[in-house]
Amino acid sequence: MRDTVPLDGTSPVPLPHDPSSHGSQRKKQGLMGILRLSHVDITVPDLDLAAAYYSEVMGMNEVERTGDRLFFKCWDEEDHHSLAVRYDPRVGIDRFSFKVEEEDDLAELEQAVETFGFRVQRVSKGDEIGQGESIRFETPSGHEMELVHEVEKVGGLLPKHNPGAVPQGLKGIAPPRMDHLLVTAEEVPEASKFYMDVLGFRLTEQLLDGDGHQIGTWMERSHSPHDLAVVSGPNGGLHHFAYWLDDWDHVRKAADILAYNAIQIDVGPTRHGITRGNTIYFFDPMGTRNEVFTGGYRPDPDFPTITWTEDNIGKAIFYYEGDLNDRFMRMHT
Amino acid sequence: MRDTVPLDGTSPVPLPHDPSSHGSQRKKQGLMGILRLSHVDITVPDLDLAAAYYSEVMGMNEVERTGDRLFFKCWDEEDHHSLAVRYDPRVGIDRFSFKVEEEDDLAELEQAVETFGFRVQRVSKGDEIGQGESIRFETPSGHEMELVHEVEKVGGLLPKHNPGAVPQGLKGIAPPRMDHLLVTAEEVPEASKFYMDVLGFRLTEQLLDGDGHQIGTWMERSHSPHDLAVVSGPNGGLHHFAYWLDDWDHVRKAADILAYNAIQIDVGPTRHGITRGNTIYFFDPMGTRNEVFTGGYRPDPDFPTITWTEDNIGKAIFYYEGDLNDRFMRMHT
Amino acid sequence: MRDTVPLDGTSPVPLPHDPSSHGSQRKKQGLMGILRLSHVDITVPDLDLAAAYYSEVMGMNEVERTGDRLFFKCWDEEDHHSLAVRYDPRVGIDRFSFKVEEEDDLAELEQAVETFGFRVQRVSKGDEIGQGESIRFETPSGHEMELVHEVEKVGGLLPKHNPGAVPQGLKGIAPPRMDHLLVTAEEVPEASKFYMDVLGFRLTEQLLDGDGHQIGTWMERSHSPHDLAVVSGPNGGLHHFAYWLDDWDHVRKAADILAYNAIQIDVGPTRHGITRGNTIYFFDPMGTRNEVFTGGYRPDPDFPTITWTEDNIGKAIFYYEGDLNDRFMRMHT
Amino acid sequence: MRDTVPLDGTSPVPLPHDPSSHGSQRKKQGLMGILRLSHVDITVPDLDLAAAYYSEVMGMNEVERTGDRLFFKCWDEEDHHSLAVRYDPRVGIDRFSFKVEEEDDLAELEQAVETFGFRVQRVSKGDEIGQGESIRFETPSGHEMELVHEVEKVGGLLPKHNPGAVPQGLKGIAPPRMDHLLVTAEEVPEASKFYMDVLGFRLTEQLLDGDGHQIGTWMERSHSPHDLAVVSGPNGGLHHFAYWLDDWDHVRKAADILAYNAIQIDVGPTRHGITRGNTIYFFDPMGTRNEVFTGGYRPDPDFPTITWTEDNIGKAIFYYEGDLNDRFMRMHT
Repeated sequence: MRDTVPLDGTSPVPLPHDPSSHGSQRKKQGLMGILRLSHVDITVPDLDLAAAYYSEVMGMNEVERTGDRLFFKCWDEEDHHSLAVRYDPRVGIDRFSFKVEEEDDLAELEQAVETFGFRVQRVSKGDEIGQGESIRFETPSGHEMELVHEVEKVGGLLPKHNPGAVPQGLKGIAPPRMDHLLVTAEEVPEASKFYMDVLGFRLTEQLLDGDGHQIGTWMERSHSPHDLAVVSGPNGGLHHFAYWLDDWDHVRKAADILAYNAIQIDVGPTRHGITRGNTIYFFDPMGTRNEVFTGGYRPDPDFPTITWTEDNIGKAIFYYEGDLNDRFMRMHT
Repeated sequence: MRDTVPLDGTSPVPLPHDPSSHGSQRKKQGLMGILRLSHVDITVPDLDLAAAYYSEVMGMNEVERTGDRLFFKCWDEEDHHSLAVRYDPRVGIDRFSFKVEEEDDLAELEQAVETFGFRVQRVSKGDEIGQGESIRFETPSGHEMELVHEVEKVGGLLPKHNPGAVPQGLKGIAPPRMDHLLVTAEEVPEASKFYMDVLGFRLTEQLLDGDGHQIGTWMERSHSPHDLAVVSGPNGGLHHFAYWLDDWDHVRKAADILAYNAIQIDVGPTRHGITRGNTIYFFDPMGTRNEVFTGGYRPDPDFPTITWTEDNIGKAIFYYEGDLNDRFMRMHT
Repeated sequence: MRDTVPLDGTSPVPLPHDPSSHGSQRKKQGLMGILRLSHVDITVPDLDLAAAYYSEVMGMNEVERTGDRLFFKCWDEEDHHSLAVRYDPRVGIDRFSFKVEEEDDLAELEQAVETFGFRVQRVSKGDEIGQGESIRFETPSGHEMELVHEVEKVGGLLPKHNPGAVPQGLKGIAPPRMDHLLVTAEEVPEASKFYMDVLGFRLTEQLLDGDGHQIGTWMERSHSPHDLAVVSGPNGGLHHFAYWLDDWDHVRKAADILAYNAIQIDVGPTRHGITRGNTIYFFDPMGTRNEVFTGGYRPDPDFPTITWTEDNIGKAIFYYEGDLNDRFMRMHT
Repeated sequence: MRDTVPLDGTSPVPLPHDPSSHGSQRKKQGLMGILRLSHVDITVPDLDLAAAYYSEVMGMNEVERTGDRLFFKCWDEEDHHSLAVRYDPRVGIDRFSFKVEEEDDLAELEQAVETFGFRVQRVSKGDEIGQGESIRFETPSGHEMELVHEVEKVGGLLPKHNPGAVPQGLKGIAPPRMDHLLVTAEEVPEASKFYMDVLGFRLTEQLLDGDGHQIGTWMERSHSPHDLAVVSGPNGGLHHFAYWLDDWDHVRKAADILAYNAIQIDVGPTRHGITRGNTIYFFDPMGTRNEVFTGGYRPDPDFPTITWTEDNIGKAIFYYEGDLNDRFMRMHT
């Protein structure tokens, strides 16, 4: 049963999440835990097209290739890959993987997930390309999630001794790193509660329907506006994953490159109300939605959660347009 | 005695700090600890001039004023103040204050500092404006440092319910928040070791002289390129404190405002090699160096430390100019 | 009767306009002629709302006010006004006015227009606010056009002796100057031919339908991508008038201000294929479409005309989106 | 004899140039005349180094090469070249060349120059690479100047039918076009008077010494802040030539590329008070000063001349720094 929360913006009422701080219970237990998004594993029906797009247009580096999989990283990432692409006739998402800070975090989080009631699978070192031992489990949002500590260091494009400040000769959009992903869930509050209470994510922003029920949540571990977000939709869906860009001018450059390559832009360049970030949404040629994102604030754990109500949903999502297009609402993979 | 480290940039040699990860010992103890710079407390010989400059030119909000002190915050900061100004005939720094995540962090860090051999002073709630209980102690770099957990929440300029994305009507440069400070120390390695091993700072970059001895260190707690940096100089000195700006265009806007107000620019607009950030250094009308800063990377605790050697010091500090001006090297307060 | 021009983009075919140079016949007669857009005169049903919007949101300076008229200028314009607003129950356009370089140009152009077959009306000095003698006539596109030489100098915001480089304290979007306007015409080729052959406009770009017939023309006098453009539509219509902004960051700032003030954005921020400029279209609260525009090239009279074909119309108008919204096509005033 | 002009910025006094309009006498004669800077012809002691620098770092296109000469153009220029480089042991300038609008302009300007008292040389079609007939003469500033009408069209990088808006795959700084040049003269007023009264340049800004004597003039033909500028110095000297960049972010990108290639930056990124433009000065590896420039206003012939006095020279030249470095003042080629 859901609580009804008549939000009028002036008189504080009990919210699904206490907004006085956006921290989670977990951090109070003194655990280190999750650092950031490690990689997103998607499926595509055309590996050659995926290789061409993610290398030439997005400007990622193809790190490794096996029979049916491609591994990509961004130029400023040290770890083996931030995007894995697997051949499958259906466009979709296999899993998303987050990196934990300490070796011990894997065991602690494994226990926390099992205590919560989900079965955890250990993947041994050597069984997955580019990384050591990991744990995998299904989340309440119907996604396979992975946690990993040991990742093969490939190194970024800039050296660690007397480096230049800006790499030269990059191709395509060339974002420095992967930033976050947004998934869909039938029950946003339950899904978010798991990510927060069991895995230690902190709630930066939430979108509430007229009954005060969460229909979108934005959560972070890396002191950025969001590492993981959940919006209403079918369980197991991927709305998009997003790359970081360094500023608004790079957003324009990205749009120029997308237009030059006839990539379908979904929305943007524009700004989000939620996160305040500047953004473009677009689709890779197989149909997975990508985003480039920049800006926003820098939330420490004492950051107070921001709450949006559904009557402001247009402005919340697309601050300039003030409304959502149907495609943005319906399309996910 | 100092180790000699003949760095040639190709063959790895033992460094003052193990570069395979920029983490500290402290984080492995499972402590939460320091979040970010809370406030810098400086002295000025003219309170009215300070009020005019920090309000009208820097565009901070004057939060509170007592007989001989002024308290300022930036528009996107929630806490009571990030700059405290006290009347004194001499321009200088009273202390710098960092905020810790948990109440218990104060006791734990108090014990760590005392174990290290420094006396810690407790400041009771009510004894300092805008904050609760804190601890203060002298550091090996000869500075008074404060740690505080409870801070009065004043709130930022944007509301927490259905906010706009960008505040309107700001005056002056109007940075969203304070970012970091750089202090001077006679013995950079010893000073830095204290900040890292006792207080849990992580080393993002270091500058080594020809003997492999640290002459500059850049350390973080907030997943930014630096919250605190130390360079060679007299103990107890303040080189500058820095404000965050959102992008390169705001750097130009800051320069336009500084020039319009006839504020002396020290260096910039330019870019740092260290941190990769874009920057302007300038002096407030009383003589304290300020910086506006943007860009750089986003280091998690697994970020590998970057090492610079003194033969690259020009490029390290001012990437475009390739050399340092005398004033930049000599002037501190 | 229209010529059929099967354009395939590779084999040059006869075009409505010789593309080897975008000059007009008139310039070869050694006349000085038109300098730039002087002012646009529109009608609005609410003078107070117009005053509030054009002063506070657009950030123009209200220069003068009479019983039913308001006069506005941008901060970097020297002349009396670039926008005149008159009360009328119907939103529309009274006329557009271009400034000529020399006193004698008025007589020469008066004769040229009359030779072409249109009646010219002389408006005496003192009969129109802020300017001296002018000529007015109807154009083949069904618009009242005015040419004026003598304009009252009000002066820009920056002084002419040792000025600052950037004005401080501006309100709203605050464009430095008016840039161009786009009108609709039933017969684009006939309308454009008049502006070019009689008035000396030079054709920078043209959009051709499948029959090689012009459905859009972009023409300049001020060495910018366009001072006046004509697209297919009813005679006498105003599609929009546009302000110049200095760069892409000011486009974002404009979008932030529009969103903050709940002004309806039509399209953008985006880029045009035609002119290459970055842009936002939006509606003033009474319904006249405004544009902010930046970028593009700098065409001298030897600039070769660029030709677009209707199958590329989406990319031509909105380079990122690749298609037009209905509102953009249908709405004019 | 020079007039003494005690300028106090408030009471208007007779200036060397009537500031009520920045036009010249020549335009009143109804001539078309000079369009813009066509090309600068410099000498270098190392053709290979020049080829490498102007192609790879500046990102110009090498259009043609003969035994001792190289010809370069920018990507958005249609004409054969905007920079010609000739081998000579000494770094210097051979001439600068401006393009005129009409064939007849050559004869008219030839006569005007000869009437003024300078001998004019006709260069026949075929005698100079990439262009038709031209005239050459020495100016009062001791420079060889060329005027040319017919120039071989090589074409820009973007097509003229349904072009993309932004070229992809550019190397180096890649400015779209050449913008202006600044030369030195012993007698700035005499030199400027020639350029204005004989050749039709219009004075946008002037810098006066304490006696009201011009020590710098900025003049235009292309409705930009300056196509040609003259400052005090030896006759025949080249202070710099400048490329146009589209915005402030491209200025940063240029600085990043210069630093990466270890090119010596003279001053910048900064802003000029004169022209308001943003800028970087730097030296090509042989010693000729280059500039990248963006911004500024758009002066039509009715633009009122701006006057600076020498007590503001620092701010006039480098608006942020407020003073000049010695190298900037002394170095020319």
